[in-house]
Amino acid sequence: MPTASRYLQVIAHYHVKPGLGDRVSELLGELTAATRQEPKNLGYDFYRSPQDPDRFVILERYTDASGLDDHRAAPHFQRLGFGTIIPMLVSRQVQSFEVSVNGDGVATAVQR
Amino acid sequence: MPTASRYLQVIAHYHVKPGLGDRVSELLGELTAATRQEPKNLGYDFYRSPQDPDRFVILERYTDASGLDDHRAAPHFQRLGFGTIIPMLVSRQVQSFEVSVNGDGVATAVQR
Repeated sequence: MPTASRYLQVIAHYHVKPGLGDRVSELLGELTAATRQEPKNLGYDFYRSPQDPDRFVILERYTDASGLDDHRAAPHFQRLGFGTIIPMLVSRQVQSFEVSVNGDGVATAVQR
Repeated sequence: MPTASRYLQVIAHYHVKPGLGDRVSELLGELTAATRQEPKNLGYDFYRSPQDPDRFVILERYTDASGLDDHRAAPHFQRLGFGTIIPMLVSRQVQSFEVSVNGDGVATAVQR
């Protein structure tokens, strides 16, 4: 993932209802491809826990907070995210940091 | 993962040499169990990409930067990390944020 001087880092934890992990994995693949086309997206990758296959983490980067807002408003997230994957979850925890990296590498992060 | 007012958030990306992913997954399971016993560790979870099984991400939290230093000095990381897993990698990228969350949720992060 490219490191810009300013970006929004998002760590999203998805805990899937038992037995739906494989289907969510497929859907996240679709969502990944569509999200990476968004103008303000800098990276979007999802991973699955080998120790608990019902747990996924998504690492996302946007140019800034408005990029995450645009992502959530996008038709593909409305359909795949809110409309399909999120109802298949037990829980969802999203943590984001607005990171700005100055000359000597010091980053200021606003945790939402 | 518990949210303290101060912590070190680490995102480590491991790209494994072809064919070694399953073995690294086993070793990361061992490393996870040992790391969670460290006094300054607040969380340690590893995930694997369904789209590219040679790519793992580890999400780690420590009380502060000295916790990551202690982790790297620990015998189990010397043996499992530096001694076994890291030689099995194509690449390794570690990003860490020293996060301090004040009253209104504003976090200051030093990106290492």
